[in-house]
Amino acid sequence: MEGSAKRPLFGKAAIIGVGLIGGSLALVMKKRGLVERITGIGRGMENLETALSLGIVDDITQDPAAGVEGADLVVVAVPVQTTADVVKRAAPGMGPGTIVTDVGSVKGAIADQVPPLLPDGALFVPAHPVAGTEKSGAEAAFPELFEGRLCVITPVEDTDRGALEKVKKLWQEAGMRVVEMDPLHHDRIFSAVSHLPHVAAYCLVNTVAGARDADPHLLDYSAGGFRDFTRIASSPPEMWTGICALNSRFILEMIERYEESLSKVKELLEKGDLAGLREEFERARAVKDSIT
Amino acid sequence: MEGSAKRPLFGKAAIIGVGLIGGSLALVMKKRGLVERITGIGRGMENLETALSLGIVDDITQDPAAGVEGADLVVVAVPVQTTADVVKRAAPGMGPGTIVTDVGSVKGAIADQVPPLLPDGALFVPAHPVAGTEKSGAEAAFPELFEGRLCVITPVEDTDRGALEKVKKLWQEAGMRVVEMDPLHHDRIFSAVSHLPHVAAYCLVNTVAGARDADPHLLDYSAGGFRDFTRIASSPPEMWTGICALNSRFILEMIERYEESLSKVKELLEKGDLAGLREEFERARAVKDSIT
Repeated sequence: MEGSAKRPLFGKAAIIGVGLIGGSLALVMKKRGLVERITGIGRGMENLETALSLGIVDDITQDPAAGVEGADLVVVAVPVQTTADVVKRAAPGMGPGTIVTDVGSVKGAIADQVPPLLPDGALFVPAHPVAGTEKSGAEAAFPELFEGRLCVITPVEDTDRGALEKVKKLWQEAGMRVVEMDPLHHDRIFSAVSHLPHVAAYCLVNTVAGARDADPHLLDYSAGGFRDFTRIASSPPEMWTGICALNSRFILEMIERYEESLSKVKELLEKGDLAGLREEFERARAVKDSIT
Repeated sequence: MEGSAKRPLFGKAAIIGVGLIGGSLALVMKKRGLVERITGIGRGMENLETALSLGIVDDITQDPAAGVEGADLVVVAVPVQTTADVVKRAAPGMGPGTIVTDVGSVKGAIADQVPPLLPDGALFVPAHPVAGTEKSGAEAAFPELFEGRLCVITPVEDTDRGALEKVKKLWQEAGMRVVEMDPLHHDRIFSAVSHLPHVAAYCLVNTVAGARDADPHLLDYSAGGFRDFTRIASSPPEMWTGICALNSRFILEMIERYEESLSKVKELLEKGDLAGLREEFERARAVKDSIT
């Protein structure tokens, strides 16, 4: 066995939510010999059985407390709004020294909600591996998902440094570049670069589809640009509802800024100020060069 | 020579604006033996010289009237807002029977503006090949650009049927599926499926980039979704300013509908109505399935 020469990072790992992220991380842990055994925990038996038959996990259960029993590492990879509930149900199975981490796209609320739910001695490390596709479920999992991407760890004052280093190592083994950041700073940044774009795409697709009253065959004419939006807007609604709910303050602020930008374009167009309009478009085009 | 067995569709063709669309069409005409000779006409000498050296056109000039002299086909492939001006300057070189066509993304204004500018006997066929990339200029041209895509021809009452059939044949030879449609119906449809998405992307990129006040390194964290927007928002600003100006009525209507959709999401979020929010996202996700 490839990983047998070095001592694994963890003995038993429990993954709550064996979807795209949880399942892909399990595959990484197996491939890199980071763990001896993985228990998959979830709500849906069908998805768990898929994960088991694909060799993503070694055993499965729908009972969080039983599943985390004896685990050195518990990864919570469920939609953010259900994280607290799942942790509460798993907590009775955790012991002192159990490292608990999550993968959610919102960090402020999670850093507040989770620690009080844990038993004494369990160590929480909030993390956000920035990766994903519009697909979901164990079937969509693949170990290369994280390669070359960014993982943000958002420690708080009493985060255990040893636990943090282990979680950091885990994501580095998955091929990620790991950075540390304050949870609210994270939430503000991601409300801009990720959460607003998803809300904008969902709304755009609904708006365009709503214009079918002008022509029932309207979407037959959809060209390149619109198809990109439909791809983003096919992201899992449950996941994005949770993200919006838990990061609503910053997301509302970003939607308002976006409305201001649209309103400005509308005004320029109503006034026929084409030089002003072009300036707006030029400004947006220049951004691409600044990020590549 | 490959095309020498069949009689070419046109003798001399003149292409005003040898950019991505005009240049790619020229390459199609040459490849398929549809034309004996192509004159490239444009404002910028550097781009024209590139087109000449790449073999896209056979001769070049900055003088529209001289360039169209003796042409059976004149293709106007400039930003829509300059179409009328270019046609006016080219008109003195046109004769009876000259077929004039365009490639603009707005058709109502073009169908109104162009015919009165033409000399007696010149035949105008408004067309919109729905193709493009975010690149521009002769250097970006390639003959496969149009393959499998849609071309909308928007005849008006006095459009010459013989001329229309020839323009239709031209785009079919380029690999396009050609449909006919009323110009205003076209403009309404494309305000939804193409023009609004571009405006939305420009504004989104400006909004996200504007949030750099929260963190100067914000864009280092940009993930998949946002990158799609920056691609769309790197479309040529001059071209999109013109499209917005000439189709402002329908575009303003679509921006307003978009604002309503964003406003609805904002309200649901403010009220904490997560079921309603999820319903909005589910609705958008379902659209993708209806267009593939």
